[in-house]
Amino acid sequence: MKASQFLISTLKEAPADAEVVSHQLMTRAGMIKKLGAGIYTYMPMGLRVIQKVEKIVREEMNRAGGIELTMPVVQPAELWQETGRFDKMGPEMLRIKDRHERDFVLQPTSEEVVTDIARQELRSYKQLPKNFYQIQTKFRDERRPRFGLMRGREFVMKDAYSFDRDRDSAQASYQVMAGAYRRIFDRFGLTYRAVAADSGAIGGDLSEEFQVIAATGEDAIVYCPNSDYAANIEKAEALAPQGPRPAAAQALTKVSTPGTSTCAALATFLDLPLSATVKSMVLATDEVNDYDEVTKTRVFLLLLRGDHEMNEVKVGKLPGFELGFRLATELEIVEHFGCKPGYLGPIGLKRSVTVIADREVAVMADWVCGANQLDFHLTGVNWGRDLPEPDLIADLRNVVAGDLSPDGQGELAIERGIEVGHVFYLGTKYSQAMNATFLAEDGKPRHFEMGCYGIGVTRLPAAAVEQNHDARGIIWPDAIAPFTLVICPIGMDRSEAVRAAAEQLHDELAALGVDVLLDDRGERPGAMFADWELIGVPHRVTIGDKGLKEGLVEYQHRRDEAATKVGLAELPALLKGKLGL
Amino acid sequence: MKASQFLISTLKEAPADAEVVSHQLMTRAGMIKKLGAGIYTYMPMGLRVIQKVEKIVREEMNRAGGIELTMPVVQPAELWQETGRFDKMGPEMLRIKDRHERDFVLQPTSEEVVTDIARQELRSYKQLPKNFYQIQTKFRDERRPRFGLMRGREFVMKDAYSFDRDRDSAQASYQVMAGAYRRIFDRFGLTYRAVAADSGAIGGDLSEEFQVIAATGEDAIVYCPNSDYAANIEKAEALAPQGPRPAAAQALTKVSTPGTSTCAALATFLDLPLSATVKSMVLATDEVNDYDEVTKTRVFLLLLRGDHEMNEVKVGKLPGFELGFRLATELEIVEHFGCKPGYLGPIGLKRSVTVIADREVAVMADWVCGANQLDFHLTGVNWGRDLPEPDLIADLRNVVAGDLSPDGQGELAIERGIEVGHVFYLGTKYSQAMNATFLAEDGKPRHFEMGCYGIGVTRLPAAAVEQNHDARGIIWPDAIAPFTLVICPIGMDRSEAVRAAAEQLHDELAALGVDVLLDDRGERPGAMFADWELIGVPHRVTIGDKGLKEGLVEYQHRRDEAATKVGLAELPALLKGKLGL
Repeated sequence: MKASQFLISTLKEAPADAEVVSHQLMTRAGMIKKLGAGIYTYMPMGLRVIQKVEKIVREEMNRAGGIELTMPVVQPAELWQETGRFDKMGPEMLRIKDRHERDFVLQPTSEEVVTDIARQELRSYKQLPKNFYQIQTKFRDERRPRFGLMRGREFVMKDAYSFDRDRDSAQASYQVMAGAYRRIFDRFGLTYRAVAADSGAIGGDLSEEFQVIAATGEDAIVYCPNSDYAANIEKAEALAPQGPRPAAAQALTKVSTPGTSTCAALATFLDLPLSATVKSMVLATDEVNDYDEVTKTRVFLLLLRGDHEMNEVKVGKLPGFELGFRLATELEIVEHFGCKPGYLGPIGLKRSVTVIADREVAVMADWVCGANQLDFHLTGVNWGRDLPEPDLIADLRNVVAGDLSPDGQGELAIERGIEVGHVFYLGTKYSQAMNATFLAEDGKPRHFEMGCYGIGVTRLPAAAVEQNHDARGIIWPDAIAPFTLVICPIGMDRSEAVRAAAEQLHDELAALGVDVLLDDRGERPGAMFADWELIGVPHRVTIGDKGLKEGLVEYQHRRDEAATKVGLAELPALLKGKLGL
Repeated sequence: MKASQFLISTLKEAPADAEVVSHQLMTRAGMIKKLGAGIYTYMPMGLRVIQKVEKIVREEMNRAGGIELTMPVVQPAELWQETGRFDKMGPEMLRIKDRHERDFVLQPTSEEVVTDIARQELRSYKQLPKNFYQIQTKFRDERRPRFGLMRGREFVMKDAYSFDRDRDSAQASYQVMAGAYRRIFDRFGLTYRAVAADSGAIGGDLSEEFQVIAATGEDAIVYCPNSDYAANIEKAEALAPQGPRPAAAQALTKVSTPGTSTCAALATFLDLPLSATVKSMVLATDEVNDYDEVTKTRVFLLLLRGDHEMNEVKVGKLPGFELGFRLATELEIVEHFGCKPGYLGPIGLKRSVTVIADREVAVMADWVCGANQLDFHLTGVNWGRDLPEPDLIADLRNVVAGDLSPDGQGELAIERGIEVGHVFYLGTKYSQAMNATFLAEDGKPRHFEMGCYGIGVTRLPAAAVEQNHDARGIIWPDAIAPFTLVICPIGMDRSEAVRAAAEQLHDELAALGVDVLLDDRGERPGAMFADWELIGVPHRVTIGDKGLKEGLVEYQHRRDEAATKVGLAELPALLKGKLGL
C-alpha cells in the first residue's frame, strides 16, 4: 500500500469532548470520526484495525466450532415480547416503528432471534451442541455516550450463543469458548485478565469477563498475585475476618457530634481511624401486586465499616432482595429511626427494621455509630452487650487491596481494566421463556441449555490504545496495527536511489505478506515521523540519501527511543526477526 | 469443513409467501430465514455465499484504488437536512428518534455522510482523486417488501463514492469503476449486461446498470444483437421512423363506438391493427409558490400509438416537466376536452392544451382516435388536413423488440434482467448542496465532482439463483458457491474404507485451498444428494464401498445429468481440471 492511495489524516489537537486518551488519539490519528453522540465513522485507518480484530475473532471462533451467521440489525418486537425484554429493557434499547406503525428494535444483542432460530432448526439432541455467532452492528442508546469507541451507541460486537442438551454439555461448551477467548486475547498481543464475574440469577461460577488491563479502565479487577484468582469487584468475595470478635473494652457513650453526618467527618472529629466507624445504609424492598401497586414494604439497615463500600450485586442477592431494592426514602427513615439520615444507628430500633451486618462489622468491638438523634453518635458500641446480634451477617462490601484472597493464597490486589469480552452460562432462561426445545434421547422435549459470549470488536482497539500509548501517540501490537511496518523515505522526490530502495523494500515485504505502507506523500521527515508515531505503526524503516550512499537504512520500533542503523544487507534478517516472519 | 460441525437445514416445501424461485430455493436450502417482512437472517449456508461476494467486491474495489471505511447505520438527521433529502425521501427512509427525541435515519445510502467526510478531509486538489467505499447494512422501508433478498428492507450494499477535481477526472474515475464492476461481475461467473441507464438531471451518458440476465428479472433490458448497444428500457431511445409520413388516403369519419374506451377494444371493434390507433394521455404540470400553493396548471395531451407504452423517464424530460408531472384529473379533462376519458383525441381542442406527439404518431396517416364525445371515435385522421401539426414531437415511448437500434446496427431485442450494480456520475449535486469544496490548483475553492457506485451484495446471490437453477435446486457458479465441492460418502458409518477415503480426500482438497465439505451426517444417499442438489454445490464426489473395491469413485458436476466413474488415481487430475486449480 502506498500512502498516496490511502487516506492519512492526522490532527494536532484532540476534539474538546474527548475525555480519554483512546478517544483523543484515535481521533487525532484519523481512525474514527464522530458523526453524532456515540456514533462514529470507522475511517480507513481505523477500519484496518477493526478488520484485523474481526479476522482473529472469526478464525478462533471457527476453530472452536462456532458457526457464523448474521442476524438482522432491525428486529421485529414480537420475539422481544416473548421474553418480556421489549418492556423490561430500558431506554438504551432503541425502539422504532416502521411505515406501518409496527414495532421494531435495533438489536442490542440477539438472544431472542438466535433462540428462535434454534427452536426451529435444532430439533434433535443429535444436532447438539451448536454454537452460532455473528459479527454485527449493535445499537444501544446510552444516556450519556462518551469515551469514543469505549462507550458508543453504535458499535460492532461478536456475539455467540451455544445450545446444549444438558448442563454438563453446556458447561463444556462454555469452557470451549473460554479457551477460545484466551487464544483470541493472546493473539491480540494485549495484557489482559480473565476474571470471574457475577452470573446473576443463574448462579454458579460460569461467568468470566475478559479485561484489558489499563490504568484508565472503568472496572476494578481483583486478583491474587500468588495465585490465579481473579474476579471483578462485583464478584470478589470478602472473606469473614479470621479470629473471634475482640472483647468489649469501652463503655457505651453518647457523644455530641454536631454537623458530622458522614463517617469521614466523624472519624476526624473523634480522632479515630475511619475503620473504627460503622455506617448505616437504609434500604427498602417493595412487594407489588398484579397492578404494580405496592402491597408491602420492608426496611433494612445495612451496617458497613466506615471505610468500606457497599457492593450492590452482593446486596441484590440477600434474602428478600431478589426482586430488587432501593434506598429508603427520608420519610421511611424518619418513620423507622425517628431521625433523619446522617446520625442513624442500629441501637434502639423498632423490630420492623431488619439489621444486616457486613462480615467485618459483625466481629468489631468498641465501634462508633449514629445515635438515631440529630448531632449525636455512640462510641464504644458492642454487639450483644449494647444491641442484639444482627439479624443476618453477610458479605455486603467491595473487597479492598490487602483483603485475604478467597482462595487463601495471599492478599488481594486491585487494578483497573476495560471489559472487552464476556462469557456467560445462561442456563434455560431464554429457552424456557421462548419454549425452545429439542427432542432428547428419550424422545421427550427438553429446553436448550444456553450460553452467550460477547467480544466488543470496536471497543477492543480503544482498550488497546488505553493500554499502549505514550506522549507521542498510539503503540499498536503487531497483530492489530493498521499497518505492521511503514517505510519512510526521506526526499523521495529528489533522490531516485531513495525512491528505488523504498519501492523495492515495499515490494519485497508485501510479497512476504507483510502489511507494509510506503509513505510516498513527500512530507518532511519531522511531520512524517510525527504522523506515524501518532498513528502507532509498530515498525518503521527510514531510507535517506545519505545513509544509502553508505549502504545504510534505519530501523526503529515504536517503543524504541532511537533508530538503529542497519546495513541494507542485514535488513531482511533483522526484519524477519522483528516481524516474526 | 465437516457437515456435522455446520448447520445444514433443508426444507421440502417453500414458504407460502415465496413468489420467486430464488426466494423459494434459498429458503428451502437453508440460506436465509425470514424474521419479518423483508428482514432475513443470513443463515450459515447463505452467509458463506454473501461473504464470497463481499471478498470479490473488496478485492476489486481495492485493486481499483477504492479506500474502505464504514459509515454508521444510524445517521443524525442534520446532514440529511442539508441536502433536503430528510424531507424529500419518501417513507422508505426509516426515520427514528433517540431517547432525547433527536431525529435519525437508518442509512438507505450514505452520500451525505461521505460528502461531509470529504469536505473535512480532502482539502487540496493534491489529495484527489479519492474513492471511498463501504460494505454495510442498509435499510429501506419498502412499502411491499417481497421476493426474499431481491427486494428486502434490510440488506447489504457496497456503496462507493468518488471525489474528483473536475469533470474530466470524475469521468475517468467513473470509467475506472465501470471497469472494476466488469471485473467483479466477470468473477462472479454470471451472465450479465452493463446497460446504459438514465442519469436524470445530470445528463450525459454516465450511468450504467449491471443487470444479471434472468427470465424472471423485474427490469427490461434493451440490446442490439449486432453491436454492443445495451440500455435499460427507461433509457433506450426510440428513433424517429425512417421515411416521410404517408399521404392521407381516407376521409375523416366520425364513427359510433359504444363501450370501447380502450385502444384494444377499439381495434377489435373496428377490425384494425392496434398500431392504427392512437391513444391520448392527458398529463398536467403544476407551478407552486413558496407556500406550496399551486399558482398555475398546464394541461398536455400526449399521443402514442395504441400498441406503445408511455416512458415516464422520457416524459419527465419534456420541456416544462422538469419539476414533475401528474395525470390530469377527470375534472381537468372534462374542462379541457368536454368529454370524459376513454374517447379523447386531439381534434377540436382549446389552445390551452399542448399537444405532444410521439415520433411514431407524428408520421402516421389515416389513424384512429377519440372524438372528444362519449362513445364516438374518429377514423381516417390525418395531420395537417384534420388538425394542426403537433406542438411538439418527441420520443415518449418504451422501445419494443424490432425497433431500430439507436446505433444503427440493426434491430433491438429485449430481455429481462435483475439490477445488481449501478455506476453513476453525480456531478456536483451533493457537493453544492453541502458546500463541499477543496482548494483547486489556483488556490480557489471548488466543488467536488462526484460519482456513486453501488452493488447489491445480498441481492446478488438471489439474482445468481434466478439465473442458475433447475427443478432440483440451485446451481452456484464456483466463485460464490457456499462450498465448491461436497464429498458424499455412502455408508461412512459402516465402512472404514469409505471413511478413510472420504477424510483423506477432504484433507487433501482442503490443503489445496479448496472450499470442501465432507457430508458426515450419515444420511442415506437419496436424501444426501437431494440436499446438495437443492443447495447447489457445483462439484460432488461420491465415495461408496462397492466402487472403492474397484478403485473407483464418482464425480458429478451439478449441471451433469449423471455421475462419472473415476479411478482414484485419476481423481486429482480430474478435480484440478474441474476446479481450475
